[in-house]
Amino acid sequence: MFVNRMARYEVLSEDALEHIDRGWRRLVTELGIEFLHPEARRLLEAAGQDVDGTIVRLDPDFVLEQVALAPESFTLHGRNPAHDFVVGGEHMAFCPVQGPPFVRRGSERREATLADYDDFCRIAQRLDDFDTAGFLPCEPNDRPLDSRHLDMQRSLVELTDKPHGGAGISEVAAQDSIELARIVHGADRLEAEACIYTVVNVNSPLRYDDRMLGALLEYARARQAVIITPFLLMGAMSPVSIPSALVQQLAEVLAGVALVQLVRPGAPVVMGSFLSHTDMKTGSPGFGGPESALGLLASGQIARRYGLPWRSGGGALTSSPAVDAQAAYEGMNTMYPAFLSGANLVIHTAGWLESGLVASFEKAIVDLEIVRMLREQFTPLEVDEASLAFGAHEEVRHGGHFLGCAHTMERFRTCFYRPLLSTTDNFERWTRNGAHDAADRAGALVTATLESYETPPIDPALRDEVRAFVDRRRRELGD
Amino acid sequence: MFVNRMARYEVLSEDALEHIDRGWRRLVTELGIEFLHPEARRLLEAAGQDVDGTIVRLDPDFVLEQVALAPESFTLHGRNPAHDFVVGGEHMAFCPVQGPPFVRRGSERREATLADYDDFCRIAQRLDDFDTAGFLPCEPNDRPLDSRHLDMQRSLVELTDKPHGGAGISEVAAQDSIELARIVHGADRLEAEACIYTVVNVNSPLRYDDRMLGALLEYARARQAVIITPFLLMGAMSPVSIPSALVQQLAEVLAGVALVQLVRPGAPVVMGSFLSHTDMKTGSPGFGGPESALGLLASGQIARRYGLPWRSGGGALTSSPAVDAQAAYEGMNTMYPAFLSGANLVIHTAGWLESGLVASFEKAIVDLEIVRMLREQFTPLEVDEASLAFGAHEEVRHGGHFLGCAHTMERFRTCFYRPLLSTTDNFERWTRNGAHDAADRAGALVTATLESYETPPIDPALRDEVRAFVDRRRRELGD
Repeated sequence: MFVNRMARYEVLSEDALEHIDRGWRRLVTELGIEFLHPEARRLLEAAGQDVDGTIVRLDPDFVLEQVALAPESFTLHGRNPAHDFVVGGEHMAFCPVQGPPFVRRGSERREATLADYDDFCRIAQRLDDFDTAGFLPCEPNDRPLDSRHLDMQRSLVELTDKPHGGAGISEVAAQDSIELARIVHGADRLEAEACIYTVVNVNSPLRYDDRMLGALLEYARARQAVIITPFLLMGAMSPVSIPSALVQQLAEVLAGVALVQLVRPGAPVVMGSFLSHTDMKTGSPGFGGPESALGLLASGQIARRYGLPWRSGGGALTSSPAVDAQAAYEGMNTMYPAFLSGANLVIHTAGWLESGLVASFEKAIVDLEIVRMLREQFTPLEVDEASLAFGAHEEVRHGGHFLGCAHTMERFRTCFYRPLLSTTDNFERWTRNGAHDAADRAGALVTATLESYETPPIDPALRDEVRAFVDRRRRELGD
Repeated sequence: MFVNRMARYEVLSEDALEHIDRGWRRLVTELGIEFLHPEARRLLEAAGQDVDGTIVRLDPDFVLEQVALAPESFTLHGRNPAHDFVVGGEHMAFCPVQGPPFVRRGSERREATLADYDDFCRIAQRLDDFDTAGFLPCEPNDRPLDSRHLDMQRSLVELTDKPHGGAGISEVAAQDSIELARIVHGADRLEAEACIYTVVNVNSPLRYDDRMLGALLEYARARQAVIITPFLLMGAMSPVSIPSALVQQLAEVLAGVALVQLVRPGAPVVMGSFLSHTDMKTGSPGFGGPESALGLLASGQIARRYGLPWRSGGGALTSSPAVDAQAAYEGMNTMYPAFLSGANLVIHTAGWLESGLVASFEKAIVDLEIVRMLREQFTPLEVDEASLAFGAHEEVRHGGHFLGCAHTMERFRTCFYRPLLSTTDNFERWTRNGAHDAADRAGALVTATLESYETPPIDPALRDEVRAFVDRRRRELGD
């Protein structure tokens, strides 16, 4: 997996960090956080926090004591141990887009199905760029709502052997996901190590709803990983000020982390960040602009200050409805900050289109090229005597050409980044080859990726056990 | 103009910088630099350097003594003093693409003409994003080769009142450019201040040719600004190793800077950097990849170490033949490092397409959006008590919505970046409006920009004097 050994780019001064620290403390003390699940309130009350109806006013020092119990990094285990990955430190793990109800491939745009879901699983398995398929690269709308998490997890288990996510939509779905993980990894291992993770979105501002809390409590009890992510569109779920949104994000995350640690001290938990803005002219969400880039840079710095691994919302975000220049510059403008600030888990790495409504196969390839370029450029330059290649200069001298010199001949295969999608063809050659723009070419690469996919081996007994569980639970859920 | 008050992102360790320092010293000492102009060799020999045929072996300490005479920053003066800009320090100035022989607008791709040249001058004048039109946004192929620099400079004087560049192609053309600047600014002012600048490309590796040196000597004598730029495509003009290319770039630049300072101590001079790679599969140049990004980050750090203002080659570079996703992510991948490393003069800011063969009007708009986003995001976040907007949280509370709250209502017009080109329209609305992708929409913005252009006022006597000079010199040059 990728380890980002470059320096972190820090945008907040010590003074700014102090302001933000005072800010979250004031929010949780004076306004408190709303927890719409009685068990969450009971746990917090038992720990001495001030419960007033559904609102819990928290002692910030208590919160930080709980946060200190969370591990700074942990390993997520896959069915194939070769694909285990670390969340935290200098590690960066990459996950495709999550959540879109629609897919787009070529000119076809339609509701996503389980077949599309499976294709995204195959792509995430096939390409080394991905450490995980996540849990929801797109919504399988052709499966019944209450039991589709079972279909999804079955696909994840059978089509990939990398670590994957589980359902976070409700307590019941979370129990199913964890039980399936127990079948795959065994009860002992699940007790000891993180084998599945879920994203818990806060119902910002300052509220956790009962379904999300139900899932959070289940994963925490099972000692599996919870990624707590306030989904903040400034102007909608938070004020129209980046510092204010950062403070709110921190208050919400830390409250959730404290709750996880109350349930199960030492349980793996991740600070999530997903901060963008509302276009004030249209009321639509906007992605990939300066606000989300600054939010990413600041969030990384804040996560490190509080000793938490962190997940970035960005990825390659965009509001563009097409796989065009806007999709690419907005995507790059969220991915670059994710690297600069060393995001530990990059969700929405590839495929996000139309403000997240669409999972685009072609956009996924565009985004992978972006990730590959950035991995290369966030690898420290080795500067030593040999790298200065004085001998090449001695050979070529003044006004010469390095194409045929010994130094080049020894290195030409590996000396530069080899693009996946980008072309250096001149106009004549490009035209002769059909004048395919990047989106066209990405389409061909999608096809090639899917054609070269191979199902990873699985013990038939395990496969049957998973299927039997899925079938039984589907019946029990009435589907 | 834009002042980049964010931190610089530094990719080279102190140890790496020491290696690079030893590297350029060895190159200029052991191999030397070739100067194909007798006056340059005479000057260097008189200063005690070792001249051997056309090769000059330089004493690195002498070179650094000369470099120390160059100003760390200087002001470039325009016909309208409101447009003067600073080169150096935290300032960043932006210049459109320079040099393409072709233009593209919509689906039309053809040889550039003076009419295209004039349109780029108008765009550079019209939009505040540009500090200068440069000297050659595209090549006016419909004008005679030997005198077209006169047509170009006449356009620059009449269509813009911002500082602009001058010819660097030969001694004679340089003399014309400087004489025209003297007409516009007056001899006294030209003697005291920088009113015109030129780019001198080194004939890398390790060679300055007679034409470029002729121009360099003219500008230096006139105390006008010289931007010394090795144009390094690794694998062609330099070895296939970034550290080696950085060392070569530094050796070439410092030798040129030393020469300028010998001619005229204190003359303004800029370290240019233009470092990319050769695609080893096709032999074509490649732009916008990880190599040029790393080259940019390292070059800024090196320029600061040697106390020189620096010019970045990037800009928004790409090898793409279309205004597509590749053009945008490669453009962003060279512009982002230019901001991270605080380039003082960004050439090729907007319009570069097809590895620099084409000046694209639509790409210019795409690139301007990139620049605008980055200006916004390289403006330090102000984090103070007021920015935390506690009152907004008190008003909205748990699970509420910030769209209508007082804090938002007071700020909604200015709180977020307002895009030039990007859309947040949902799919239905976007489709209803014609399903125009970013390149299409950019085309409409090009038209609107040109339609709203106004010729800046000029003293008719000055205009006539410029025209008379241009006409006379054109005749003398036989065109």
